[in-house]
Amino acid sequence: MKATVDCVHCYLKQAVSCMRMAGVDEDTQHEILFKLMDYVKGFDRNATPAENSTYAVLKTYELMGIDDPYKEVKRQSNDLALELYPRLKRMLEEYEDKLYTALKIAVAGNVIDLGIRRSFDIEGELRYSLNTGFSKDHYDTFRQKLKNVDEVLFLGDNAGEIVFDKILVEELIKLGKRVTYVVKDGPVLNDSTMEDAIYVDMDKVARVITTGSRFLGVSFNHMSQEFADALNKAPLIISKGQANFESLEQYDMARGRVFFLLKIKCDEVAKVAGVALDDVVFFTV
Amino acid sequence: MKATVDCVHCYLKQAVSCMRMAGVDEDTQHEILFKLMDYVKGFDRNATPAENSTYAVLKTYELMGIDDPYKEVKRQSNDLALELYPRLKRMLEEYEDKLYTALKIAVAGNVIDLGIRRSFDIEGELRYSLNTGFSKDHYDTFRQKLKNVDEVLFLGDNAGEIVFDKILVEELIKLGKRVTYVVKDGPVLNDSTMEDAIYVDMDKVARVITTGSRFLGVSFNHMSQEFADALNKAPLIISKGQANFESLEQYDMARGRVFFLLKIKCDEVAKVAGVALDDVVFFTV
Repeated sequence: MKATVDCVHCYLKQAVSCMRMAGVDEDTQHEILFKLMDYVKGFDRNATPAENSTYAVLKTYELMGIDDPYKEVKRQSNDLALELYPRLKRMLEEYEDKLYTALKIAVAGNVIDLGIRRSFDIEGELRYSLNTGFSKDHYDTFRQKLKNVDEVLFLGDNAGEIVFDKILVEELIKLGKRVTYVVKDGPVLNDSTMEDAIYVDMDKVARVITTGSRFLGVSFNHMSQEFADALNKAPLIISKGQANFESLEQYDMARGRVFFLLKIKCDEVAKVAGVALDDVVFFTV
Repeated sequence: MKATVDCVHCYLKQAVSCMRMAGVDEDTQHEILFKLMDYVKGFDRNATPAENSTYAVLKTYELMGIDDPYKEVKRQSNDLALELYPRLKRMLEEYEDKLYTALKIAVAGNVIDLGIRRSFDIEGELRYSLNTGFSKDHYDTFRQKLKNVDEVLFLGDNAGEIVFDKILVEELIKLGKRVTYVVKDGPVLNDSTMEDAIYVDMDKVARVITTGSRFLGVSFNHMSQEFADALNKAPLIISKGQANFESLEQYDMARGRVFFLLKIKCDEVAKVAGVALDDVVFFTV
């Protein structure tokens, strides 16, 4: 999808979050924000929100002189999610359709803000997520497609959430599939990198590769040959989160092949996906 | 309260809402937004968010060449609320403490987005509002103070919502109080003006005055003598909505005299009020 005018103030909002996360003082926050305003005026309106967001985020990092403001919070999210992991596995046992439940657990990692939380707060929210359906649900189609493929490409999203994804990866493996899990090549917001994948042992269950860049979502102008090949030849793709959706939904290659698994966190994405804000979805275009 | 760095991107977000409401095309929206970015850089960081928002909104109106983009939607909100009015009155009858219920009805007008809705959607939300308590509740103190006063100053907020306020005004009158209801002196967002007050017959039950300006909330630098006097001498004040809270919470004159009735719609206000985002509150500082 293309960036809209509503993305513009959202780039700035995201920059403020980054600066707050980095503990930048209020004066400097204003200074950097004002510089960033001039910078975003030059953005390509035909680019995806994910791509433009990346430019805004990396510019903010540059202006702050801090390259990974989410380092600490990513570690905390991973630790919390790892602490939850045994409970997630037990929950999975309670449901008949393991694959469907694992999809819901995986998206719950996207729904629940793991930022700075204690694990005991989360169980209620998790139950709620598991009992809430996808407002757009192509699970039957996915299940059908899955029968005819040997491998699945899994486009990951955030740290912490990656542990929830692992539950889904493990279910895919039980069904005899090979999984390639994709992380970012460098720190950008709280997105998972190779370091996170190794920290949560994703590399023990799946082949882990990076996109070859620090871009949010998928940037066709900024990817490694390895990732380009994986994207081209994968018979079936699970795409987590908004940035991946923003990056891929407009392409023919996504039709019936990429299944988007996400919580809808903005009105513009809701419009494009044909659902409502805050909905949780699993669908292909 | 003072504006924060998070207010900055919010001014721009609000401008986009205004432009969308006015049906401005996407190219012009970008153009105006970029001009506005330069404009907001000059804002006084010691001003309230309500004051700076007003400057941003009125600048947007000027750049669009449209003076009242919310005219139509305000009319719709009033019509919808007037259609609901008999049901609101019947609901009130179901509860023992009429004043407390009328406070909740009044704030429900702030909670429910009356924008473009059909009345039958709203009843459920309304019931939910009535059954949900205030997360910060100084009703007992208010009730006590009310006993010793003859009149109440009521700082209004939006169109549509003004009909819900009328229910509360009528309960105050039943208790033998005189009410002065305050609207804006000209159109700014969907705030009530004298035109709205007359349209919904608020002038039949209360004395209606304007703030003397088009500023959101209360601007001490932009008010009529009539409003300044009313504000100074009122023994008890009900203040609806965020902009009025942002304007008054820091003043000694508010302590134990101004009772803020609102839904908390942003994190910064939540912080200052000491409550959570989305909470509904009735309290004095």
